[in-house]
Amino acid sequence: MRKLEHIGIAVKDLEQANALFQRLLGSAPYKTEVVESEGVRTSFFEVGGVKIELLEATRPDSPIATFIEKRGEGIHHLAFDVASVEEKITQFSADGFSMIHQKPKDGADNKKIAFLHPKSTNGVLVEICEDRQS
Amino acid sequence: MRKLEHIGIAVKDLEQANALFQRLLGSAPYKTEVVESEGVRTSFFEVGGVKIELLEATRPDSPIATFIEKRGEGIHHLAFDVASVEEKITQFSADGFSMIHQKPKDGADNKKIAFLHPKSTNGVLVEICEDRQS
Repeated sequence: MRKLEHIGIAVKDLEQANALFQRLLGSAPYKTEVVESEGVRTSFFEVGGVKIELLEATRPDSPIATFIEKRGEGIHHLAFDVASVEEKITQFSADGFSMIHQKPKDGADNKKIAFLHPKSTNGVLVEICEDRQS
Repeated sequence: MRKLEHIGIAVKDLEQANALFQRLLGSAPYKTEVVESEGVRTSFFEVGGVKIELLEATRPDSPIATFIEKRGEGIHHLAFDVASVEEKITQFSADGFSMIHQKPKDGADNKKIAFLHPKSTNGVLVEICEDRQS
């Protein structure tokens, strides 16, 4: 893993959470994006080089809706920047980690992404991501 | 908030989790520390300038033991570096955030710390921390 790319936080109401995190972090979100494939609407904050991504479900079968129903609002995942999502999927699978995605898929912020299952990472949902332009 | 200082992850077995996160992150923990006041044993990893702190309970009444009992292993808190924990406690309290600690207390890594209650921050347990030497 090259660096922590962002922290994903599941929220019920993006407008309410945007206002709250702006007061908490001291800066406004610098963009908002809808990722239809994931059923999420997201906003991004930046604090000292790390992005904080708020995630609101856009439909009842969104993974974010399911998460909030089970666990309530809160930290959803950690995303790490990698040189190649495909290579990491191969490496982590060989090393015994359980991959939710066996192939890279489209994520927010123009990235290829894949998730590791939290059952193999001490309950932490881990995303690996790679810039599409790289 | 000046920067994300660390991410705290609650684990049941620090040795098991150290080995797993070493394989996941590609680097070994650079230190281990016991914080008696909090009832935790911690280890620290570093990824691209951000610390990841694994936390194991040292006694049944540790906040980490309570967290794992309720929610299982996983991401426990986000810690942000601030210039003054005392000033931030005053500011956040005045701004309607709910502080768990009204006064700074001792944390790991030679820091003064305080926590905000997750009920006022969309379910995210937020720590503010300040280097003791600063």
